[in-house]
Amino acid sequence: MRVLGVDPGSRFMGYGVVEERRGRLTHVGHGVIKVDPDAPLPHRLMVLHAELAGALSKYRPEAVSVEGVFTFRNARSALVLGHARGVALLAAAQKGLPVFEYPPARVKRSVGAGGADGKDAVARMVCALLKLEAIERADASDALAVALCHLNQGRAAGLVVGTSRSARSKSRKGAAALLADRLSPSYRRPEAR
Amino acid sequence: MRVLGVDPGSRFMGYGVVEERRGRLTHVGHGVIKVDPDAPLPHRLMVLHAELAGALSKYRPEAVSVEGVFTFRNARSALVLGHARGVALLAAAQKGLPVFEYPPARVKRSVGAGGADGKDAVARMVCALLKLEAIERADASDALAVALCHLNQGRAAGLVVGTSRSARSKSRKGAAALLADRLSPSYRRPEAR
Repeated sequence: MRVLGVDPGSRFMGYGVVEERRGRLTHVGHGVIKVDPDAPLPHRLMVLHAELAGALSKYRPEAVSVEGVFTFRNARSALVLGHARGVALLAAAQKGLPVFEYPPARVKRSVGAGGADGKDAVARMVCALLKLEAIERADASDALAVALCHLNQGRAAGLVVGTSRSARSKSRKGAAALLADRLSPSYRRPEAR
Repeated sequence: MRVLGVDPGSRFMGYGVVEERRGRLTHVGHGVIKVDPDAPLPHRLMVLHAELAGALSKYRPEAVSVEGVFTFRNARSALVLGHARGVALLAAAQKGLPVFEYPPARVKRSVGAGGADGKDAVARMVCALLKLEAIERADASDALAVALCHLNQGRAAGLVVGTSRSARSKSRKGAAALLADRLSPSYRRPEAR
C-alpha cells in the first residue's frame, strides 16, 4: 500500500509518500509546491493543481490522505484554504484515487505526538518513524504524517471523502479503503451551499 | 466582448454568457451544473470542473466574471464554497482567461437592483436587460448578472483576480481587462495560509 499525504495551502502545498509492505514503513518521497505569492489566485491554483497532479503521476499512490479542517482562524482564511484544498481533491479525483480525511488530533496521535505538540514535534516523530535525518519544511512533514496516519490507523478509522469512479481504481483501493468505505456513515459531510 | 459569469456552489454552479457588440447586450447562453449531493466531495468537484471547462470551450468567452465573497454564514460553509470556487477559478486559468471579481452590491447595482433586493428581483432585471421571458434558476440569473456587471461597469472598476499567462490570451483580453489590470492595486488579496 502506497499513500500520498497532502497538506494543502494556497502558498505552500506539502506532499509526502509512504509505502507499507509486510508491516514495514518506507519513505518514498516528499516535496513542497511553492507558488508566487504575488501571482493572481487563479494562476496560483493552476500551479498547485499541475504540480500535485505531477507528483501523483510520478509516485503512483493507491490512496490520498488529507487532514480534515475542523477549526478555523476566520471565515476568510477558510475560504482561501478551501480554494487550495479544492484543487488538491480535484487532482486526486481526476486520477481515480480514493481520498481519506483524518482529524488533526488523530494524525498527531498516529505518529506518537500529543494533541498539544507543535509541528516540530510532529516532524521529529515522522523522521524517527521513517528513518530520515531531517525534513526541511513543516508542510512536507505534516503531509508525511497524514500519509502515516492512513497506514497506521486508517484501516479501521478512515473517513472516506472520496471514492474511485471506476472498477479499475476500485481494484486498487485495497482492504483498508474498502473497510473505511464500510465505515463511511461516520463521514461528516461538509455543509453544501 | 463576450463574458462568462459564474455563480459557484458545491451543489449547483450557475454560468451565464453575455456578449456586447457596439453597445448592444446579447444573451448567448446559460446553464446550471448540478452534482449529486450524495457523491463524495472530490467527485463533485471533478464534475463541476469538467462541466465548467466544457462550457468555457463551448462559449469561448474572452473573460470570466465572478462575484466576490465578503460575507460568510460561517467558516465551514466558507471552506466548502472555497472548494467549488477553487475549481471554477482553476478552469478559467487553465483556458488562459482573465478572471474579474465584483462585490455583490456592485453586481446588483449593475443590473438596476438595490442592495436589499433579493434573487427574484435580480432575475427580473436580468430578464428585462437580456429580453428573456424567464430564467429557471437563480444560480443562472446570478451568473448572468455578474457577466453583465463586467460588461456594464467593469471597464473602470473591475478587480482583477486573474490574468492570462500567455501572449495569446493577453491579446484576447481587450481594453476592459487591460484597464482593470492597471487598476489592480485596488485588488484585495485574500489572506494566504
